[in-house]
Amino acid sequence: MPQKYIFFDIDNTLFPTSQFLVRADENAINAMISRGLACCFDDAMERLRKIQEKKGSNYSKHFDLLVKETNGRRDLKIVAAGIIAYHNTKNAMAPYPEVLGVLMRLHDKGHKLYIATEGIEIKQWDKLIRLGLDMYFDKVYVAKQKNRAFYEHIMKREKVVGKECVMIGDRPDKDTWPAMLAGMYTIRVKRGKYEKESARGKAHKEIYDLRNLPEIIEKL
Amino acid sequence: MPQKYIFFDIDNTLFPTSQFLVRADENAINAMISRGLACCFDDAMERLRKIQEKKGSNYSKHFDLLVKETNGRRDLKIVAAGIIAYHNTKNAMAPYPEVLGVLMRLHDKGHKLYIATEGIEIKQWDKLIRLGLDMYFDKVYVAKQKNRAFYEHIMKREKVVGKECVMIGDRPDKDTWPAMLAGMYTIRVKRGKYEKESARGKAHKEIYDLRNLPEIIEKL
Repeated sequence: MPQKYIFFDIDNTLFPTSQFLVRADENAINAMISRGLACCFDDAMERLRKIQEKKGSNYSKHFDLLVKETNGRRDLKIVAAGIIAYHNTKNAMAPYPEVLGVLMRLHDKGHKLYIATEGIEIKQWDKLIRLGLDMYFDKVYVAKQKNRAFYEHIMKREKVVGKECVMIGDRPDKDTWPAMLAGMYTIRVKRGKYEKESARGKAHKEIYDLRNLPEIIEKL
Repeated sequence: MPQKYIFFDIDNTLFPTSQFLVRADENAINAMISRGLACCFDDAMERLRKIQEKKGSNYSKHFDLLVKETNGRRDLKIVAAGIIAYHNTKNAMAPYPEVLGVLMRLHDKGHKLYIATEGIEIKQWDKLIRLGLDMYFDKVYVAKQKNRAFYEHIMKREKVVGKECVMIGDRPDKDTWPAMLAGMYTIRVKRGKYEKESARGKAHKEIYDLRNLPEIIEKL
């Protein structure tokens, strides 16, 4: 089997991002209640959700707004307690259980492994390093927006053509559909926040975890 | 003995800030070298010192500059590794060994305990909470600049007069001298970065750690 160029998304592909974000928020809410957030756990979680929806995930003052809205005034003691608990949750970050073994097997078979992800570059590096995965990848590509041009740009930079490439991700709109348009073979992992999204025809193959990835790639 | 209003600085008074910052930088440098910083440990530490002196301690891109200067290009993998190691060091933050016992004894004797510190409010809260000390204090005052007016402001807010107050800190220029001008009794702790600073006449009393603080205050 010829060498392949295998591109992975990070969030909900290598790492249970959706689960982790909920756990981090829960830990933060508990810490804020211990320092005086005047609210029960369930109400606080609901308020935080609404703030996150309204302000977007890259806004940095979610906890400040929650405290102000709940206690009627700014209180940096409570905010700091939330931020500490949120960041401490990061120390418990781990990849999906099969990921390390799968990456090692693909690497040993001589494939080249890459990250192709969307977001803020330093935040994506932060995840890869905390997950202990950064050493497995030949290169990391981070786009502000993942579209067909991004995948074409990567192939040009790596001097490869679509049929040598496999893109693996959880989102039809960001991972598999634009990569397919760029000529790559695409595999959708149905897990995380977008697992239920219907996307008929938007990936060559659908799987539920990465366990059989080496065998799937073997047969291409 | 009458109730006293006792004000503490944080850095190098309750917590070995200077020591901690060196340890955090050392851990960050090691992590950055492991991810490709093209430099030996000692050279990297010296370069980082120079960048910190030039840019000041509240500048947030020290590691970015170090990587760029050393490797000749931007590399966010290395920067992220440094930031993670720096922040993980925070999980090992602890107060000076005698601090918890002394605060408990002062509290049990009926004194009111406060923080009077300079810096960025959320950062000072972050330290107090990580140190497990935030619960001991009746109130926390954070100034952009500690001067006589700041101490006068605190006394006005707490409705107390100078002779009821004790200010404890490591810096003559920020802690003991302006507090003395405002009429407080002042105690200088000679430790940390400023321990050797000569400051004759700038505090009513000098000590080397807080162990005997309850007895000293008993006699006032």
